[in-house]
Amino acid sequence: MTDVQKALSLIKRGAEELLVEAELVEKLKSNRPLRIKAGFDPTAPDLHLGHTVLINKLRHFQEIGHHVMFLIGDFTGMIGDPAGRNATRPPLSREQILDNAKTYREQVFKILDPEKTEVCFNSTWFEPIGAAGMIKLAALHTVARMLERDDFAKRYANNQPIAIHEFLYPLCQGYDSVAMRTDVELGGTDQKFNLLVGRELQKHYGQPPQCILTMPLLEGLDGVNKMSKSYGNYVGINEPPKEIFGKLMSVSDDLMWRYFELLSFRSNDEIAGLKQEIDDGRNPRDVKVLLAQEIVQRFHSRQAAEDALADFEARFRQGAIPEDIEDVSIACDAEGMGIAQVLKQAGLTGSTSEAMRMIEQGGVRLDGERVSDRALILKQGSQVVLQIGKRRFARISLS
Amino acid sequence: MTDVQKALSLIKRGAEELLVEAELVEKLKSNRPLRIKAGFDPTAPDLHLGHTVLINKLRHFQEIGHHVMFLIGDFTGMIGDPAGRNATRPPLSREQILDNAKTYREQVFKILDPEKTEVCFNSTWFEPIGAAGMIKLAALHTVARMLERDDFAKRYANNQPIAIHEFLYPLCQGYDSVAMRTDVELGGTDQKFNLLVGRELQKHYGQPPQCILTMPLLEGLDGVNKMSKSYGNYVGINEPPKEIFGKLMSVSDDLMWRYFELLSFRSNDEIAGLKQEIDDGRNPRDVKVLLAQEIVQRFHSRQAAEDALADFEARFRQGAIPEDIEDVSIACDAEGMGIAQVLKQAGLTGSTSEAMRMIEQGGVRLDGERVSDRALILKQGSQVVLQIGKRRFARISLS
Repeated sequence: MTDVQKALSLIKRGAEELLVEAELVEKLKSNRPLRIKAGFDPTAPDLHLGHTVLINKLRHFQEIGHHVMFLIGDFTGMIGDPAGRNATRPPLSREQILDNAKTYREQVFKILDPEKTEVCFNSTWFEPIGAAGMIKLAALHTVARMLERDDFAKRYANNQPIAIHEFLYPLCQGYDSVAMRTDVELGGTDQKFNLLVGRELQKHYGQPPQCILTMPLLEGLDGVNKMSKSYGNYVGINEPPKEIFGKLMSVSDDLMWRYFELLSFRSNDEIAGLKQEIDDGRNPRDVKVLLAQEIVQRFHSRQAAEDALADFEARFRQGAIPEDIEDVSIACDAEGMGIAQVLKQAGLTGSTSEAMRMIEQGGVRLDGERVSDRALILKQGSQVVLQIGKRRFARISLS
Repeated sequence: MTDVQKALSLIKRGAEELLVEAELVEKLKSNRPLRIKAGFDPTAPDLHLGHTVLINKLRHFQEIGHHVMFLIGDFTGMIGDPAGRNATRPPLSREQILDNAKTYREQVFKILDPEKTEVCFNSTWFEPIGAAGMIKLAALHTVARMLERDDFAKRYANNQPIAIHEFLYPLCQGYDSVAMRTDVELGGTDQKFNLLVGRELQKHYGQPPQCILTMPLLEGLDGVNKMSKSYGNYVGINEPPKEIFGKLMSVSDDLMWRYFELLSFRSNDEIAGLKQEIDDGRNPRDVKVLLAQEIVQRFHSRQAAEDALADFEARFRQGAIPEDIEDVSIACDAEGMGIAQVLKQAGLTGSTSEAMRMIEQGGVRLDGERVSDRALILKQGSQVVLQIGKRRFARISLS
């Protein structure tokens, strides 16, 4: 592989869409550091792993010598939601924004090299252009084309109000690209329209249009919904090492590979090697440990990662699960099944009431963790090891 | 009539629409000087009588003690048409705008009392609000409501582009009303939507909403099309006295009353008196002279008005038309009829070729004016006095 091919392969890893690939190849061939942009709201500086997918991609660019620009949208942040329809998003003060920006940097520089990262604020160019500049910007796009954006089209068709300033946001984001002379802009898949506006505005201002690279939304620990605080399926990057480690050890084997792709900085070759090892019989849990350790080390330290592993293994030994235990398949509804019922059907207890009693007495463990909630529901499709006392085990598949 | 009733009657004279009349009555009853706004583009300072209809209405307000604010839209003027689709409207420089504003004042103060007129520039409040202020303003209106405006609705339906900044203009105009704490805004009938936006924005900002008063477009000298330089049917206020006088003497009797209503500062009672005199047999031409003199005096001087009248009468005597002349009706096509044909059919010449010859020799007058164009077309519906030599007359009706 040529250097350009190698770079392209790293850039495209885990990405949803790259537009326009041929243009990016030309840019990469130019052998100059490309100007890579990603924009962030200054509103939510408490990041979880889902937020880091984009930042990791910036890191990829940084690794191969490009110039990373981390844009904090302080101009739009100060505006908040001026229509007042959404009381949960009040305008931020200048102090709040600077505070948030500081927190942002602290978190982001656990991934990016601070020496090689330019932190930008878009108030730098929006304050000077003034009200007249905003009107000129608004002149560069038509109402009809803006209404083609999926969410606008739906809201307009459903008679849901669209405030006029909402049309200005994509233009502001596009103008950021002009002001930053961006070669490549990264964003979530929901950002595609706005990223394309950047291309147009750059053409209008006589600049080569940026390439756009969209990254998928990261699935949460449940493997189903996107990672989000509101779903409770997230790993916060400021959580204690043991929490991060434990949460990552809880993901399915499938999701583990997704996380390797989007969250690990191991090379594609290394990851392919690990997959081969599992095919050859290595316990997937050992590979999951590598992922958990890498993430804990990134946001805490190498020592914290080792401690978290030691702690996890101690707990694992304490509730040590023998190699040879009975496999039990239990059929259940789509809603899953209560743990007491599962214990009874697996033959671990004689009745659900005995199961309840055992749970109350602290005698039941699930994957080595003591169960305290008698009403715990096990989901359909889950695979767990249940243990009563010290010696009675079963590996349960709920289907 | 109470003072309020008198004021209302003057305000409504010639106006197209007043919204909301009950609110205006309340404002008038408050006995404070109301803040009256009219906005003008700084692009076309060479005014004709059509432009003065609004300014005359401002003068009415001034006459009854209200505070007139003459707004020059220098902020929007500096923006021009940034979409570049209309090359005929380039952005104006600050110097051009100040120059134009000066010319504007010189012309407008022939109608308004400079001592009682506040000249405002909207850059005063738009420059400080900045790009963020413009976005906040845009948040106060929805796309759907803006698309309800007639011209936007049509263009959207016909897939004609609407640039997004066009949605910002009505908001800017509305915000002018907020910044000026406007009680009454005047505008053309085509401005109604924008004037109503002003009411909404004032409510949003906790101000009592302005009343709006729309004035009709003035018909040009032809009595059909709106007065406009491009139709050639206008009277420029900077034209020489004799030009203004002569053009006004050329209008039909019907149009004369329209001009009295919209251009004269004679009271309603005086105008009613003049109508009565004509009903009682006074020559309408004498009344037209009063109108022409008033307008010439306004834009030049009393002396100029007298000179113009004397000149007009001299020319009129030179080509004096006897009181008793023959009335001739001639049927013609919708396209009208050539003058030579008319002369022949009226029996003033024996043939069209004789008619042509008479014209070439300067022997034909139309309403006292020598005719030099042999190809002159007389319109269907026109009434003219044609004269050959000194003694042969006919009053022609083309139908």
